[in-house]
Amino acid sequence: MISATVAQQLIDKLGKENVIAEKEDLLVLGYDSTPGLHAMPDVVVYPTDSEQVQAVVEIARDNKIPFTPRGSGTGLSGGSIPVNGGIVICLNKLNKILEIDEENLTATCQAGVVTLDLFNAVAEKGLFYPPDPGSQKISTLGGNVMEDAGGLRGLKYGVTRDYVMGLKCVLPDGTLLDTGGKSVKDVAGYAFKDLLIGSEGTLAIITELTVKLIPPPQDKRTFLAYFKNIRTAGEAVSKIIAAKIIPSTMEIMDKATINCVEDYVKIGLPREMAALLLIEVDGHPAVVAEEAAEVEKVLKAVGADDVQMAKDAEHAGELAAARRTALSALARVSPTTLLEDATVPRSMLANTFDLIEKLAEKYKLTVGTFGHAGDGNLHPTVLCDERNEDEMKRAHAFYDELYEQVLEWGGTVSGEHGIGIAKKGYLAKQIGPGGVAVMKRIKRSFDPDGLLNPGKIFADDQE
Amino acid sequence: MISATVAQQLIDKLGKENVIAEKEDLLVLGYDSTPGLHAMPDVVVYPTDSEQVQAVVEIARDNKIPFTPRGSGTGLSGGSIPVNGGIVICLNKLNKILEIDEENLTATCQAGVVTLDLFNAVAEKGLFYPPDPGSQKISTLGGNVMEDAGGLRGLKYGVTRDYVMGLKCVLPDGTLLDTGGKSVKDVAGYAFKDLLIGSEGTLAIITELTVKLIPPPQDKRTFLAYFKNIRTAGEAVSKIIAAKIIPSTMEIMDKATINCVEDYVKIGLPREMAALLLIEVDGHPAVVAEEAAEVEKVLKAVGADDVQMAKDAEHAGELAAARRTALSALARVSPTTLLEDATVPRSMLANTFDLIEKLAEKYKLTVGTFGHAGDGNLHPTVLCDERNEDEMKRAHAFYDELYEQVLEWGGTVSGEHGIGIAKKGYLAKQIGPGGVAVMKRIKRSFDPDGLLNPGKIFADDQE
Repeated sequence: MISATVAQQLIDKLGKENVIAEKEDLLVLGYDSTPGLHAMPDVVVYPTDSEQVQAVVEIARDNKIPFTPRGSGTGLSGGSIPVNGGIVICLNKLNKILEIDEENLTATCQAGVVTLDLFNAVAEKGLFYPPDPGSQKISTLGGNVMEDAGGLRGLKYGVTRDYVMGLKCVLPDGTLLDTGGKSVKDVAGYAFKDLLIGSEGTLAIITELTVKLIPPPQDKRTFLAYFKNIRTAGEAVSKIIAAKIIPSTMEIMDKATINCVEDYVKIGLPREMAALLLIEVDGHPAVVAEEAAEVEKVLKAVGADDVQMAKDAEHAGELAAARRTALSALARVSPTTLLEDATVPRSMLANTFDLIEKLAEKYKLTVGTFGHAGDGNLHPTVLCDERNEDEMKRAHAFYDELYEQVLEWGGTVSGEHGIGIAKKGYLAKQIGPGGVAVMKRIKRSFDPDGLLNPGKIFADDQE
Repeated sequence: MISATVAQQLIDKLGKENVIAEKEDLLVLGYDSTPGLHAMPDVVVYPTDSEQVQAVVEIARDNKIPFTPRGSGTGLSGGSIPVNGGIVICLNKLNKILEIDEENLTATCQAGVVTLDLFNAVAEKGLFYPPDPGSQKISTLGGNVMEDAGGLRGLKYGVTRDYVMGLKCVLPDGTLLDTGGKSVKDVAGYAFKDLLIGSEGTLAIITELTVKLIPPPQDKRTFLAYFKNIRTAGEAVSKIIAAKIIPSTMEIMDKATINCVEDYVKIGLPREMAALLLIEVDGHPAVVAEEAAEVEKVLKAVGADDVQMAKDAEHAGELAAARRTALSALARVSPTTLLEDATVPRSMLANTFDLIEKLAEKYKLTVGTFGHAGDGNLHPTVLCDERNEDEMKRAHAFYDELYEQVLEWGGTVSGEHGIGIAKKGYLAKQIGPGGVAVMKRIKRSFDPDGLLNPGKIFADDQE
């Protein structure tokens, strides 16, 4: 509970309509999209500009109240759950696109702008903002930056990090920091911007950002390739890259996912196949034609069981939309969906599919795997029921064994979802105690009192 | 002076041949490529693997001796000058390319590999490592990472940062930290790698790195555009980008630079022109043909006084090589060359040329300007004589006034050369005292005793 004095201070700064303290209203802001996680905030505030964020941080700091930033809550590792209560700073009212600069090819937005809204706004000016996380229709740019969100176009176009040129943010001590901007090169001082990207809301609160835009691809071709053996799909991905073709998209769905998605969207996916790859090549029409032919050649050589070309743009859009429903489609069929985010060097993809299959069998689990195959980034998803203690134990053993091998292959425990609460246990295994020690020193150098988004990233014995 | 005991410890770990303590040998390792800066190291060591670097750091730490890493010393801000003496750790013997992985499109190298050697080695396998700093024939990859080096291809292909996937480094406390790797996405923990890139050797010593490779462009076309008015050249750059063409290269030389370069390389550059742009478009032949036509159209529309196409690849190579000589060519004609690194949003280029001209006149200085116009990154170079006190005063006043305006335009005091010793005074002006305070806390979190590369980046009153 926060005191009436603090509540009044918040209302004085933000206005009554932007301070929520009723229990039933607070309830929904204690979740994000990670199953099984919840914590109650004491109060939720909706600042409408950077200065209001700064004012809230100052009130929190003066009163030693923990504070947790959030956007739309589409995170998948619990990064915006207010584990210690306190103030939740909801940035969704910071939703203005401030400028689209066609001369410098940049856009400047407030942090609460929805990803797809920016995409559409720049598309109207003939420009392209590539990052397209699965949740792009509701996720905010601030959240994308804080998690370094990927998406379906990551393979060719990179992730959120590759487009952030400047950040305005409020530090835990109340400093308003402006870092980077419209200059395409800037090496003055440490790379704050680059450190803050992917810091999961634990070092600063982003209030504004400037992103790079690029000319859009003129043409695109979309394929579906079906495989009776998922290992072959993994080999196909590696072979396409080794043939020096970088498609914009190479997404995979396994049999369980194909079936759940087909139940959900009914577009005629072949239920008997072990895997499908959704592949898109884009760019100049001449390049697209050549690359499409080359991709088809590689797919046939590697032994794809069927290759279909999307009939037209509408059909291609339908296929991409179907892939985007994968998580929701899987989530419909079981009470609990444990989604993971294992990422390996692409050459290890085929082995990773084998491993997932082997471990699912060993631990008697139903696992649906989908993800950004071209990035080596897979989301093996255990369909389970959290009330079944034994099943949950097996699910965790499955992930433990999977990650152990993934790390041995030079992979990572998170390609795009972050550590948050959900994966604290794995971090030290990946970066070692020395790495964790430096991270904690960095955290302290930004946030000596540990008030900003506490309880995240570091396991309890590391805090 | 270091003690005989410490010298012996170093010899025990690295071998006699890798420890240099003779004064005449040390002298040359107290310089980098920044005019007017020198400091004597007490001892220089040449480790041959990561563990030897770690051993040296441990000896330095145990004996509280400052230590400064360096590569080939091509830096232009004094970043590797051992201002407090101590141990210089020269990484040039860490010169092995460890692996070129054609399946994952990565290369793993020791930090002392020369940039062009990597470029050539991967080119042999039909792959492409784009970063090409002016000093690529002698600069090392470790130095490139520490300065986040740019190059002539930065406009389309980005800078060193855009290609670093993994780093192995030794922290000031002796920890060997492995961060990133061959996975194309990795968001587990804070972005160490991204913080270390551009940290100018003040947070860690890089010993190995893994970089991303890409398929090479299949075709290329090279233009020279001449302008009787340099402002028009700036406008041409903005208009080409605004036409949604991203050439691989758009380099500028002003009249003074054209004349010095022509004196030096004698390839028939027109001495009467106020500026030339060297423009390259590359990629698929069909794209190159279209973009070349479009570039030519924009150049004519904006009022270029002459546009010439390179006759063939050899001629194109000659032109790029001529541009690469700009700094040396300018340096030949005056006792002192003060090179700066102002960078502005591209739309401000034309105004920046005007400003440089106006300030050169105001302060009665000879200024040659060249640089990466496409990146908004200019190197206005004052040709002067450090023995002329009044001229030096005017030169500094010139830069002060220039940077004040550049910062007002949203630019930066360094696009690619770093702060080092040379530009300490400007940093706080750009990032503010709040930014400097956080930087210092980060520095302390890595290096509490301040032994790693002391005397850099922070002005004396900030240390």
